[in-house]
Amino acid sequence: MIINRDDIEQMEQRYRGLFINSVLGAKPALLVGTNSINGDSNLAVMSSAFHVGANPPLVGLIIRPSESPRHTLNNILATGYYTLNHVSPQYIEAAHQTSARYPADQCEFEAVGLSKKYLHDFSAPFVEQSTIALGLKLREEHRLAINNTHMIIGEIQLIELPAKVLGDDGFVDIAANDSIAATGLDSYVRIQALRRLSYAKLGQWPKAIE
Amino acid sequence: MIINRDDIEQMEQRYRGLFINSVLGAKPALLVGTNSINGDSNLAVMSSAFHVGANPPLVGLIIRPSESPRHTLNNILATGYYTLNHVSPQYIEAAHQTSARYPADQCEFEAVGLSKKYLHDFSAPFVEQSTIALGLKLREEHRLAINNTHMIIGEIQLIELPAKVLGDDGFVDIAANDSIAATGLDSYVRIQALRRLSYAKLGQWPKAIE
Repeated sequence: MIINRDDIEQMEQRYRGLFINSVLGAKPALLVGTNSINGDSNLAVMSSAFHVGANPPLVGLIIRPSESPRHTLNNILATGYYTLNHVSPQYIEAAHQTSARYPADQCEFEAVGLSKKYLHDFSAPFVEQSTIALGLKLREEHRLAINNTHMIIGEIQLIELPAKVLGDDGFVDIAANDSIAATGLDSYVRIQALRRLSYAKLGQWPKAIE
Repeated sequence: MIINRDDIEQMEQRYRGLFINSVLGAKPALLVGTNSINGDSNLAVMSSAFHVGANPPLVGLIIRPSESPRHTLNNILATGYYTLNHVSPQYIEAAHQTSARYPADQCEFEAVGLSKKYLHDFSAPFVEQSTIALGLKLREEHRLAINNTHMIIGEIQLIELPAKVLGDDGFVDIAANDSIAATGLDSYVRIQALRRLSYAKLGQWPKAIE
């Protein structure tokens, strides 16, 4: 079936939200950990992180204006530091529950039963239960005039991961790590390795990397 | 294990590329279809698309400067139209092979054995084999000064999808559609539904949506 711009325009708001959020494809499901300048910790599940570059190592994050009261965005802008924590199938309900509208002084970590930890002298909180986690420093913030969302670009400062999922060539096997993905506003999926393929060159067909 | 900013800095370039590209999480694997103003069709696999908003329906795309000769970027900027086509497990080799450096006048569709089709009066080419595909119109282009990448924001004009994967509430079940994801520069994965969860509210735990 074909859905055009007018059809999308006429969709009921919640229907359109589910539809557009799920039609693009799989997205990383990540818990964003921050502290306010008063030291209140905040945790929020997001699926809008994207790769911007490897050198320097940069990650983008879209934060919607409707996510009032926007504790995560305010904390990132105020402190300059945040963490991105992978989610495992065992605690997707807890991760999802962080999107409920807790007041600023209520800690989502405690409310949903996840534990907070700190690594080295990094100032933002990590999720103890996450097996892969990244610590980021804010580098750029853009307001996208087109729909009033915020785009945050952060530089990776610190990564914690199990040694066994890091290959000799630098590849991190997040399928073996059982990191989950999101495919919409409320849908969580497991990922299952198909294969890795050799670097694409003219005149030869990609081969599976064993 | 913990990897810090200095460790990343000292990684060999290709190792770092694989590492940073695979550590964030699953990304949508999409074939980007464009035409040049001369009518030459181009097709390139990318995993840097991300959701920007549902109303208006917006999708972002990061295009790296190193992807010379950048046919896709040039075509999008010149014509204003492009398509994003889901990939199925049956043709991941063909999709991956589009990243080889074909000259501008060689059509990747033919070179890799995928078929081109047009929908309604939409000017950019779709992939016949793709079961879900989006037609986009360029709305904004940003050059990210931080690493010289381009960010394209497009508005969805047209979506083709099988009626059976569209739920009554607007949810598109891309796991049931067998749309694949990418987890790095060369790694393709299947996605497998875990569960959908009810809207998160204070004082109640999320329930599985049947």
